[in-house]
Amino acid sequence: MKIGFLQLRPKFGEVKENVRSALSLLKNVSDATIVLPELFNTGYLFRNLEELKELAEPINRGYTVPALKKVAKQRGLNLAFGMAEVKNRKYYNSSVLITAKGKVYSYQKTHLFDREKLFFQPGTKAYQIYPVDGTKLGMMVCFDWIFPEVTRILALKGAQIILHPANLILPWGQDAMRTRSIENRVFSITANRIGTEKRGNLSLSFSGRSQIVDPKGNILASAGERSESLKIVEIDAREAQDKMVTANNDLFKDRKVSLYKSLVGRNTG
Amino acid sequence: MKIGFLQLRPKFGEVKENVRSALSLLKNVSDATIVLPELFNTGYLFRNLEELKELAEPINRGYTVPALKKVAKQRGLNLAFGMAEVKNRKYYNSSVLITAKGKVYSYQKTHLFDREKLFFQPGTKAYQIYPVDGTKLGMMVCFDWIFPEVTRILALKGAQIILHPANLILPWGQDAMRTRSIENRVFSITANRIGTEKRGNLSLSFSGRSQIVDPKGNILASAGERSESLKIVEIDAREAQDKMVTANNDLFKDRKVSLYKSLVGRNTG
Repeated sequence: MKIGFLQLRPKFGEVKENVRSALSLLKNVSDATIVLPELFNTGYLFRNLEELKELAEPINRGYTVPALKKVAKQRGLNLAFGMAEVKNRKYYNSSVLITAKGKVYSYQKTHLFDREKLFFQPGTKAYQIYPVDGTKLGMMVCFDWIFPEVTRILALKGAQIILHPANLILPWGQDAMRTRSIENRVFSITANRIGTEKRGNLSLSFSGRSQIVDPKGNILASAGERSESLKIVEIDAREAQDKMVTANNDLFKDRKVSLYKSLVGRNTG
Repeated sequence: MKIGFLQLRPKFGEVKENVRSALSLLKNVSDATIVLPELFNTGYLFRNLEELKELAEPINRGYTVPALKKVAKQRGLNLAFGMAEVKNRKYYNSSVLITAKGKVYSYQKTHLFDREKLFFQPGTKAYQIYPVDGTKLGMMVCFDWIFPEVTRILALKGAQIILHPANLILPWGQDAMRTRSIENRVFSITANRIGTEKRGNLSLSFSGRSQIVDPKGNILASAGERSESLKIVEIDAREAQDKMVTANNDLFKDRKVSLYKSLVGRNTG
C-alpha cells in the first residue's frame, strides 16, 4: 500500500484557503493513505476561546470534512488530519481519518500541549484502532509523542501504522517517534507543519521534518524544515506484525506485565 | 555531584584482569558515581551453561564485589556495573550498585536478550530505587532500553538518575535512551562496551558510544565506538525533579492513567 505525509504551512484562520491548498497539492495522488498536520485547516495559535469558537467545526457538518470526503472517495484516498472540533459546545483538538469508502473516524487529543489547555478539552475516549482495507491504523496527535503509553497501547491493540498529525515545536519529537516505531515495531507517519505564526504578542515556529518510519527504525521518507512537501512510499503493512527483534525476542511477549502495575497507579508527579 | 561512565573492552573469562584493568582506569577518580558496562568482569558471549557456571559469582562472596567495594570505600565512589550472578543455583544477568558507604544493591535483568535466555533467569523483583546521599538512583540493564515501561516505572518511583550498564549490539539503544531521558525528565548514564567477541562460531560486536543525557535531552558526555573511555560530568540531580515541559505541562501529572489500563492487560503479542 502507499502511505505518505503532506507537510504544510497553513494560514491562520483561512480554513477554505488551507483546505483548497492542501487538495491542490494532492491533485495527482490516488489510492494512498496520506497524513496532514494537526489543525491544518485553522492554524494553531488561537489567542482566546472566541477565536476557537469561530473556527471550530463539527466533524461531519462543517466545511472541512465534507470537502475532503468528496476527494477521498473520488480518488481512493484515506486522509488523516487535525482539526478543531466542536461537539456539545465543547472544543477538541481532534484528528480525523476519512476513508476512501466514506467512513469517518476521529480521535480527540488526550495530552494537550501548553496553552491548548486554555481552550480545548482533553479527549476521554482512547485509543482506538481503525481497520481500513485489512490494515489496522491508529491515531495520535502531536504532543502525545512524549507519552510512550499512547503508541504502546495502539500497538498492543494491533495498530500497524500510527498516523501522527503534528504541529511540533520542541526539537525532540521526530527522534522520539523513531524510537516509538522501534520499541513497538510499527510504521509511523508524522505529518508536521512549517512556518511561524505571530498573533498579537504570541509567536511560535514549527519544525517541519515530517517523516515516515518503518518498524525497524528506518526513515523511509523525510522532509526539510522550510518547504511544503508531499512524500509517498510503498510499504507492506504486514511487516508490523513481526515483533521479533532477535530469534528469541518477541517484543510484546517479552513484556513483563506483572512488573508494570505502577504504570497505572496513582500519579506520583 | 559527579557522575560518569567507564566504557571498557573486557576480555572473555578474565575476571581478575578485567576488574584490575577497570580499577586502574579509575585510579585518579574519587567522590563520583560511575557506571561500568554489563557483564564487565566476565565478558558477554557464553557458549553454554557450563561456561556461565564457571564465571558467575554470588554478589557478596565472589572476587568482583569485594574488590570494588574496597576501592569504593577508599575513594568515595558509587560504582554500578553488570556481572553474572549465581544465587540458589540460578543464574542472573545482574547490575550491582556499590555505594561509598558500603551498601550493595542489585537488580536482576528482567528483559533478557537473545541467547541470554538459554542460560539466565529473568529477574522477578523490580524496579527499585536506591537512595544514595540524598539522590535517588534507578538501575536497568542493556536491552531493558527497548521497553519504555522500565525507565518510566523507575522515574515514577522517583529516580533522578538511571544507571544503565550495557553491551549494546543493536544500533538504536543510545538514541532511545535519549528519548527515555526526555520522556521522563531524568538523567541517564549508559555505559556500553566496545570490541568484538569471537567464541567458536559465535561472534558479536559492541557499539560503544556510551553517553550521559540530562533531563532535557542534552548529551552531556559521550564516547566513541573504538576506545576505552572514562567521562565524568558535574550535575545537579535535583534538575530531574522538574517535570515541567512547558508552563502548563507537568509530564507526570499530565499522564492519563485511566486510559492506560491495557498496558497491564494480557499480552496481545
